[in-house]
Amino acid sequence: MILILKPGREPSAVLKRLAELDHVGAPSHVDGRWLVAVESRTESGISDRLRAHRDVETVQVSDPPYRLVARERCPEGSLVDVGPVTFGGADIVLIAGPCSVEDEEQLLKTATLVAEAGATMLRGGAYKPSTSPYGFQGLGIPGLTMLREAGRRVGLGIVTEVMDPAKVERVAEFADMLQIGARSMQNFDLLKAVGRCGKPVLLKRGMCSTLDEWLLAAEYVADAGNERIVLCERGIRSFDASTRNVLDLAAVPAIRQLSCLPIVVDPSHGTGRRDLVGPMAKASLAAGADGLLIEVHPDPDRAIKDGGQSLSLEEFGALVPELERIAPAVDRRLPSRSPVVSPA
Amino acid sequence: MILILKPGREPSAVLKRLAELDHVGAPSHVDGRWLVAVESRTESGISDRLRAHRDVETVQVSDPPYRLVARERCPEGSLVDVGPVTFGGADIVLIAGPCSVEDEEQLLKTATLVAEAGATMLRGGAYKPSTSPYGFQGLGIPGLTMLREAGRRVGLGIVTEVMDPAKVERVAEFADMLQIGARSMQNFDLLKAVGRCGKPVLLKRGMCSTLDEWLLAAEYVADAGNERIVLCERGIRSFDASTRNVLDLAAVPAIRQLSCLPIVVDPSHGTGRRDLVGPMAKASLAAGADGLLIEVHPDPDRAIKDGGQSLSLEEFGALVPELERIAPAVDRRLPSRSPVVSPA
Amino acid sequence: MILILKPGREPSAVLKRLAELDHVGAPSHVDGRWLVAVESRTESGISDRLRAHRDVETVQVSDPPYRLVARERCPEGSLVDVGPVTFGGADIVLIAGPCSVEDEEQLLKTATLVAEAGATMLRGGAYKPSTSPYGFQGLGIPGLTMLREAGRRVGLGIVTEVMDPAKVERVAEFADMLQIGARSMQNFDLLKAVGRCGKPVLLKRGMCSTLDEWLLAAEYVADAGNERIVLCERGIRSFDASTRNVLDLAAVPAIRQLSCLPIVVDPSHGTGRRDLVGPMAKASLAAGADGLLIEVHPDPDRAIKDGGQSLSLEEFGALVPELERIAPAVDRRLPSRSPVVSPA
Amino acid sequence: MILILKPGREPSAVLKRLAELDHVGAPSHVDGRWLVAVESRTESGISDRLRAHRDVETVQVSDPPYRLVARERCPEGSLVDVGPVTFGGADIVLIAGPCSVEDEEQLLKTATLVAEAGATMLRGGAYKPSTSPYGFQGLGIPGLTMLREAGRRVGLGIVTEVMDPAKVERVAEFADMLQIGARSMQNFDLLKAVGRCGKPVLLKRGMCSTLDEWLLAAEYVADAGNERIVLCERGIRSFDASTRNVLDLAAVPAIRQLSCLPIVVDPSHGTGRRDLVGPMAKASLAAGADGLLIEVHPDPDRAIKDGGQSLSLEEFGALVPELERIAPAVDRRLPSRSPVVSPA
Repeated sequence: MILILKPGREPSAVLKRLAELDHVGAPSHVDGRWLVAVESRTESGISDRLRAHRDVETVQVSDPPYRLVARERCPEGSLVDVGPVTFGGADIVLIAGPCSVEDEEQLLKTATLVAEAGATMLRGGAYKPSTSPYGFQGLGIPGLTMLREAGRRVGLGIVTEVMDPAKVERVAEFADMLQIGARSMQNFDLLKAVGRCGKPVLLKRGMCSTLDEWLLAAEYVADAGNERIVLCERGIRSFDASTRNVLDLAAVPAIRQLSCLPIVVDPSHGTGRRDLVGPMAKASLAAGADGLLIEVHPDPDRAIKDGGQSLSLEEFGALVPELERIAPAVDRRLPSRSPVVSPA
Repeated sequence: MILILKPGREPSAVLKRLAELDHVGAPSHVDGRWLVAVESRTESGISDRLRAHRDVETVQVSDPPYRLVARERCPEGSLVDVGPVTFGGADIVLIAGPCSVEDEEQLLKTATLVAEAGATMLRGGAYKPSTSPYGFQGLGIPGLTMLREAGRRVGLGIVTEVMDPAKVERVAEFADMLQIGARSMQNFDLLKAVGRCGKPVLLKRGMCSTLDEWLLAAEYVADAGNERIVLCERGIRSFDASTRNVLDLAAVPAIRQLSCLPIVVDPSHGTGRRDLVGPMAKASLAAGADGLLIEVHPDPDRAIKDGGQSLSLEEFGALVPELERIAPAVDRRLPSRSPVVSPA
Repeated sequence: MILILKPGREPSAVLKRLAELDHVGAPSHVDGRWLVAVESRTESGISDRLRAHRDVETVQVSDPPYRLVARERCPEGSLVDVGPVTFGGADIVLIAGPCSVEDEEQLLKTATLVAEAGATMLRGGAYKPSTSPYGFQGLGIPGLTMLREAGRRVGLGIVTEVMDPAKVERVAEFADMLQIGARSMQNFDLLKAVGRCGKPVLLKRGMCSTLDEWLLAAEYVADAGNERIVLCERGIRSFDASTRNVLDLAAVPAIRQLSCLPIVVDPSHGTGRRDLVGPMAKASLAAGADGLLIEVHPDPDRAIKDGGQSLSLEEFGALVPELERIAPAVDRRLPSRSPVVSPA
Repeated sequence: MILILKPGREPSAVLKRLAELDHVGAPSHVDGRWLVAVESRTESGISDRLRAHRDVETVQVSDPPYRLVARERCPEGSLVDVGPVTFGGADIVLIAGPCSVEDEEQLLKTATLVAEAGATMLRGGAYKPSTSPYGFQGLGIPGLTMLREAGRRVGLGIVTEVMDPAKVERVAEFADMLQIGARSMQNFDLLKAVGRCGKPVLLKRGMCSTLDEWLLAAEYVADAGNERIVLCERGIRSFDASTRNVLDLAAVPAIRQLSCLPIVVDPSHGTGRRDLVGPMAKASLAAGADGLLIEVHPDPDRAIKDGGQSLSLEEFGALVPELERIAPAVDRRLPSRSPVVSPA
């Protein structure tokens, strides 16, 4: 840690404060100011305390604030297994399904066809974060039941969102992977709960979260005992209303430098527009993503929620072969499509 | 609700979809496009469904999406009482105290002196949202106990943050007002829990929340049965690192147009800089705020958290008379400072 | 300047590079990394060069990048005179007038009434930046002639925008103060041209400009020989469409710390909403602004441009007495309103 | 155009105002409000005027505000030829070169090697926008001379930035394509000047520009007589300092829907980080970009400016074959690399 003092301030008060905190500072003088270098690597909290000191202008911390999810912990990248599927390996993980579980028939039809088209996991919301208290908030346990059943019938693992720490254990009985949504990325009690639970976690980026804040959210999960974490870039908020969010694809290679965790991209929320999902799905793979999360609905015009960003089954079916062309160009592959148990 | 169709699309499919949803559309033609006007006032969810339709380009909704917290529900503005203090009346509510409860002595000293200086409520965090799992997360129940005791000793009501829905009832035993922090503004389970609890709520704006999203968060609380809500502007995230956040003071008069709820301002988080707190506190009152939330610490240089944005007791003591000069210029007043029970 | 090297890099290559650039580095080691402190105060450009070095992770520069406009150059604050008006003194400067000069009658009526109401300068656009090539772009020279004439008739100095470096000299023949608009804040040829011209400059903040970028734009003007610069905060771009911009009032006290230049606020562009202009004008004075720039139109419903953010003459007339109440509360005053030469 | 009136307002005043402006409104009533539909397609400016009316809450314009650059004008997409190179066809245009022209030797070496590696145009700045007046601002005419000479020697067309309207003609004598930089995107006098000049234009997106504002800037150029315009996405400003900008790749397919103009991507400025240029270049092609603009420097560690985002010649040489793998996966190709005239 390096402290740069304000112009005209002598280092004595800061050195005394460091001593109180059981640290030693090495002062030096440059450009008319005092610097104090402090060996602080293993200490947490000390930089916040010193930032508050009246004589200190800047605190420069050279180490990343996270440890368990840092790249150096696993330089070759972590693998996260969810049943037969592995995030972070050569195979691209293709997660598809409706925004919300609406009814059994809709879900089973979607599950069957996305599986046939090449999806390797099924997504669907049973607890939906709704901006309005009057909006659709999901079917809850019956939705989870349908989701588990549909996953079993077509042979796909399921990922679904959990929002309330008190429901983590219950949702985990149904799901193969727990999703933390963008609005919950800094719901620290929830992060600890999924950390204790141990099920694989899909951690979406908050809509105005920096990369460091996102990795610290992952660190919460890891620190609570669960390192089976996959990150999901889903767009950040910006000033241009022409897309729902700005999909920050540079986050994919940037996260690769910082963290060992696999990272997937959600071009559906990331753009909010059906017509942009395909191009951005392809761009995600080219940028190095380990997988995709795509909203698919059998009849997007009639979806309860987010139909405007959902692909139809036909559109999804047409996209997969395009992804199969991109993947090898970055030394990845989509898994071979296998025959699926009929829904009848 | 007005639907503007895409160029070249005929209205028949949309009219059929409306009929399925038990609504009637009145089509007309302008600028080479079809419009469909739909009486939809009392329906929720229908605009989301129609937005997803392939033939629809834009859905224009003319009514605000919230009802219970809308201005028209109480055009003269709501009053929210917390013990002897009223938010929304002629008196400015001055909430002061440390970011975190650290120890009994610190807290009692702060409470005594802010009360003497003119504060009308005491703030302090016992459950702290910390970006890092290794940061200080508050003292929990012992912190709440100290807070309640300090409030009693100096005769001030206390406001403190709650983050976990499961802890709402417990925290409410100690607090006079429950704070929902910026990171929790869209923690919908928490909003429902404080709504059911009934204690007055201080609802901070999320760091990238629009005014509509903020008011819909308030609507969640109100819809769960609790209309004793006070909004708190605390800055939004922006591109300029010279302040921690951008304090959006125009939100104060803008909220006044939209909602009946009282609104206070937190210039401490809103700027993150001790040297900007005073000017922005004054500006907040001039903009029409009903109160202020100010971090005060007996020794900011030694604060565990956020010392850089905390005023010392002396600084706070010097600010109050300045606020007393501004308030009458906008037809408000600070309450008269009364002698306080000595902490001894 | 302090260079923090990447983990695992030795300092030798950086020291060699410094030697090539005729600088000396003092290496030290902390937290497992090498730091190199470099005396660099008077050098420009060197930090950019070192930032590019492969072994360097961060370059920390402790001095602000501007000198002529820095606070320390004139710790008591600069005064900028424009005719009888002084920016930066005890008197608040109240600049009012229409967004665009539309016709002689409109302008003279506005000028007369804003002068009577208490304005101390007249604003009006003859060259208008229009987002669309098909929008109104101003009357040009005839507009300037009307503006000068109106200013003379009512005894107010005039401020008007210039956009093209080639027109600076011509516009300066008419104007008492040259405005650089938000879109031109980094039009460096224009900054140099107004710098050479010597007329007082009103420099608006770019819509996504940091404080440092803004002050460096001012430094361009000063470096070209003109230190008669007044800054104008006019809102920054953000994600919430409920206001046109987010008026960043904390910029007022923050600029006060960094720079000696006077600063005024434009609540008309800063909010884009007539109903928010008054509260934000009051808040600006409370935050310490040296003046206000307010759009006033005799018939806002019929304004060619920006009518939605213009006050009517009556609204402006009603606002001034409210400002007169706020100013003394921050030890400022509005100048006394003097009788005005009749427009007849 | 559809006007939605405020609650409680009758349409008569608006209809009268429309009549003054020689337009006819068709009123209707829905959800307790009046709507007024107005045939307005060919009118400009009228929506701004009506937006200002006191009775009007919202003005909904259904047509895009640009015409010459709109998609419907050339549904198959425009082709822009610059010498032997065509933007918008099957061939990806690869523009490479140093941020700034520094000296003859550096430039010729770079030009030779990027041409050999597969670049199809040479870039280099002779007039550099520098945030600080003390920064490097380019070599001017001598830089342009070197650039033209280097282009001739290696057989590549050159693109270079122009900032001052007065210099457009002079720069056009040297350049094959004129670049408008991000800071100049709304320098309207400059847009008109390059429009009159007729040389092909590379129009970068402003750093906080919406897609509509960007296309309106292009419309300025087209309206001044020059439709040979290529757009360049180069990142927008956001809150996360981990990259210099946020590269908004969804702008590529979104612009494709709105406009006929070709679009290229600048991953160098778009990320500001050498280690992210390669992945984002690949992602750009996958998203459908017509070309790339990449900063390359023979010795990035010693670049005067932006070395941190420049590829070395070796890195660029290694990237091209990776791009050659991606392009066919989206039915594009990189042109075959031809032997280059030796620089000796």
